[in-house]
Amino acid sequence: MTPHRPTRSTGTPMRPGEHVVVIGFGPVAARFVDDVADLAAAGTIRLTVIGGEAEPAYNRVLVGEHAMGRAELASMRLADPELLARSGIDVLLGTEVTRIDRARRLLHVTDRATGDSGRLGYDRLVLATGARPNLPVLRGLNPDPHAYGHLPAGVTALRDLRDARSVRAVVERRGRVVVLGGGVLGLEAALAASEVGCPVTVVHHAPWVMTRSLDAAGGALLGRALAEAGVEVVSGAQAREVLLGEDRGFRGLLLQDGREVPGELLLLSVGVTPRTELAEGAGLRTARGIVVDHELEADVEQRVFAVGDCAEVLCPDPSCQVCPGRAGRGPSGLVGPGWRQAEWLAARVRAELEAVAEGGTTVLAPLTEGPAGAVRLKAHQVELACAGAAGGAPWEPRADGGSVVQWADGSAGTYAQLVLRPDRTLAGYTVLGLPRAAAEIGLLHDRGEAVPEDPSVLLRLDGPDAGAGERPTTPESTVCHCAGVSKGRIADAVAEGAATVEAVGRATRAATGCGGCKAAVARIIDAHTPAPA
Amino acid sequence: MTPHRPTRSTGTPMRPGEHVVVIGFGPVAARFVDDVADLAAAGTIRLTVIGGEAEPAYNRVLVGEHAMGRAELASMRLADPELLARSGIDVLLGTEVTRIDRARRLLHVTDRATGDSGRLGYDRLVLATGARPNLPVLRGLNPDPHAYGHLPAGVTALRDLRDARSVRAVVERRGRVVVLGGGVLGLEAALAASEVGCPVTVVHHAPWVMTRSLDAAGGALLGRALAEAGVEVVSGAQAREVLLGEDRGFRGLLLQDGREVPGELLLLSVGVTPRTELAEGAGLRTARGIVVDHELEADVEQRVFAVGDCAEVLCPDPSCQVCPGRAGRGPSGLVGPGWRQAEWLAARVRAELEAVAEGGTTVLAPLTEGPAGAVRLKAHQVELACAGAAGGAPWEPRADGGSVVQWADGSAGTYAQLVLRPDRTLAGYTVLGLPRAAAEIGLLHDRGEAVPEDPSVLLRLDGPDAGAGERPTTPESTVCHCAGVSKGRIADAVAEGAATVEAVGRATRAATGCGGCKAAVARIIDAHTPAPA
Repeated sequence: MTPHRPTRSTGTPMRPGEHVVVIGFGPVAARFVDDVADLAAAGTIRLTVIGGEAEPAYNRVLVGEHAMGRAELASMRLADPELLARSGIDVLLGTEVTRIDRARRLLHVTDRATGDSGRLGYDRLVLATGARPNLPVLRGLNPDPHAYGHLPAGVTALRDLRDARSVRAVVERRGRVVVLGGGVLGLEAALAASEVGCPVTVVHHAPWVMTRSLDAAGGALLGRALAEAGVEVVSGAQAREVLLGEDRGFRGLLLQDGREVPGELLLLSVGVTPRTELAEGAGLRTARGIVVDHELEADVEQRVFAVGDCAEVLCPDPSCQVCPGRAGRGPSGLVGPGWRQAEWLAARVRAELEAVAEGGTTVLAPLTEGPAGAVRLKAHQVELACAGAAGGAPWEPRADGGSVVQWADGSAGTYAQLVLRPDRTLAGYTVLGLPRAAAEIGLLHDRGEAVPEDPSVLLRLDGPDAGAGERPTTPESTVCHCAGVSKGRIADAVAEGAATVEAVGRATRAATGCGGCKAAVARIIDAHTPAPA
Repeated sequence: MTPHRPTRSTGTPMRPGEHVVVIGFGPVAARFVDDVADLAAAGTIRLTVIGGEAEPAYNRVLVGEHAMGRAELASMRLADPELLARSGIDVLLGTEVTRIDRARRLLHVTDRATGDSGRLGYDRLVLATGARPNLPVLRGLNPDPHAYGHLPAGVTALRDLRDARSVRAVVERRGRVVVLGGGVLGLEAALAASEVGCPVTVVHHAPWVMTRSLDAAGGALLGRALAEAGVEVVSGAQAREVLLGEDRGFRGLLLQDGREVPGELLLLSVGVTPRTELAEGAGLRTARGIVVDHELEADVEQRVFAVGDCAEVLCPDPSCQVCPGRAGRGPSGLVGPGWRQAEWLAARVRAELEAVAEGGTTVLAPLTEGPAGAVRLKAHQVELACAGAAGGAPWEPRADGGSVVQWADGSAGTYAQLVLRPDRTLAGYTVLGLPRAAAEIGLLHDRGEAVPEDPSVLLRLDGPDAGAGERPTTPESTVCHCAGVSKGRIADAVAEGAATVEAVGRATRAATGCGGCKAAVARIIDAHTPAPA
């Protein structure tokens, strides 16, 4: 992963007093707003954020947990509108942007509750419109394509709080759940529903689940692990029709082969699509997402940016010397990369303002791509981590001259596949049921380090004498992958008085994403808290 | 593997003075003769052994090594005719038995050199006629089916000393070798020829080599190891025609797809067939081999036995309570099982004679089947061990409720597949390039011990810190698998004065088979030889 070279911004630098408007108020927008809030409070810029939902930003990663009754809304808040307002930031909630008038730098907005419309000027626009769940084409579903959400009762995606409330109603009475789509999000929801006591069936079109990340071997072993965790998987199944009861609510899913999968809730988990229609209507270039260059610019006049799940990084200039490849990078489904973009954009704004104040030019630190994000599936009985493409069988030659190493224990249900480049760094990996090996392999991958000459030593980390040979973490070790927080930064926060996971989160943002690192953060707090005298 | 229960012999017990005639003088016959030689010397029985070759018994396992110039005939001798004659044993070499007259208990014999014929009476007959190499049906090969060996110059199998001499002539001038057949024996010859400097191509009909023992994964990795060892493998190839030069000697093999594989020597390695024609002519039942029951009896009147590669153990009585299964066991291609049969038969003869002398009845110790013999492919660059059937992919369910564990490192070329029964004992295994793991896994298999809960600990034996965790051998550990000799017996022999591998071999028969354990025997000698005072 070659980091981009530092480049000199070619656009018109941001000047003091400009009005920055952020469209969207999800986790990525909230991070940007948070990072420039001090500039707004000081009056250096004017800042407005427009959210379509009535709720201010919340941690979308935990929506599934919330649906299962395992995370309360209070712990999911990412922004406090009153606090923002006190910083002089305008927060418009429940507000839809219906049109961007680029010529006049005007937004047409509508209040969803009252229907009142109005206009809002801007100097810089940040699109953080995110993505919407895909709706499959099924008889009986008949959604209004222009009004997402008009689904039969008992049919929902799991993207926002309204979705979570529909799911929660069924989960609380331990109703039977059908999940359509065996991707990581569908499986996560299925496992969670099973853990809280719901009978769950996953219906998946491909021969095995998590087809984008796993090959047949990994898919088969994950399928077995799911079965053992109580999740029934119907693979290679084409859904045909949503069957509704007399109350017009969901009662089952009919498959192409005539089988019926009954349930009280149909959870749609068939991917998301970037919300690009606003950008398209404004004449901005879109592909899978809103096309931005390596400086997150969507507009040739460089007054419009896009970040997070709505953006696709793909330089419009095919000869761009900065972008390493021509393959666009659309939404990863992970919050980490979007947060990294929001932080970079905030730093850019700050750097430009400083350069203008000092009469210099802006040299931007590069927005590094970083290693492909890892996909993690975590449940009580199933622990899967993977990144990059699956590698196929170790005994088949690889075009790039690399190789594949594989461990599979059909009895224990453990699996590890390492995809090695010729220099023995990791192009990808899949690890199932070997949590310590997964952590070490993830480190090797993220750091671009070579895999040991005898990769079987990695299996010792989960061996009967586990702990022997485990790599001691260093202050540089990444603990929170969502927010990109190192062990050292957490230890510093603890030294400065943060005594709980929540306090560490406020100080460093660690454990504020998927929450998977909470236990690790708690251990660091324990280790670095001085014993009472 | 349930050992047979001890049974009382139902046949007519052997009586003093009876004439035992052994047909065949290969390694198995030699072992039987050796084991009853004292009875012959004492005059308790009369013993005749009839060999078709002009040579007395030699170690057939080393014929390939001999062909490559790496084993001399002197070290291969298994019998000394003069010594046998001094014990009163009649040894007829170069003698063909043309007919068995069961009614009269007479053999019709012909001296191959002189053509003289004669007859020879017997009381007990031991058939040890072995097996002959299969000859493929190929244009240009045109062998006389009644006279094995009439092949074009430069075309040969590798079974006896005459074959070895043909091969050696080409190998000594580093001629190009074509091996037809990618079974273990063909590959062993191919690797040996490559090691001594011959260009070698193996032509194999199936998609991968060692098809009987390996699945696609093991076959592919073995194929890579062979390529790295300089052996070219043409898989999935049907041979069509043997191409002969102007001198009527081999010049190449033509494949069905039109490709030509040139060479100076064509080594035929397409399996062996038990030599049953003599038994068939005498009206004995044959299937794949001469059918014998669990007491090695081929004749209902129990005067004819068969041992070694010509015999197939398959009780004629379908309700037999002794034989555990109804599947016949034909030639294994390994010397060990034949030797075990010869030893058991000699012990039976001895027990019957003793019972008659004491006026009692004979209770026979059971001839245990033992675990399926391991197949080992050993060369400087390739070390493969396998036993039982290959297990398929670990992620596929197994009919018997067992499971499969697999390790494959496409970079190092190592592979291990363990096929576990539900009780975690080994139904089979394949290990490539992990010699210490192979030894330990072989032990677990042979002893019927359970595989560790975390089988990855077995990989540590070949890890960078090899030696850690290796199982200390016990006096009961089998060192020589051909002759079935334990470490303790070797140590005892050393204590009694055996100071060289050859001396240990004379005392215990260890290292007298394939020779693969010579280094281990040498280490035991070193460890148990008292330091000079």
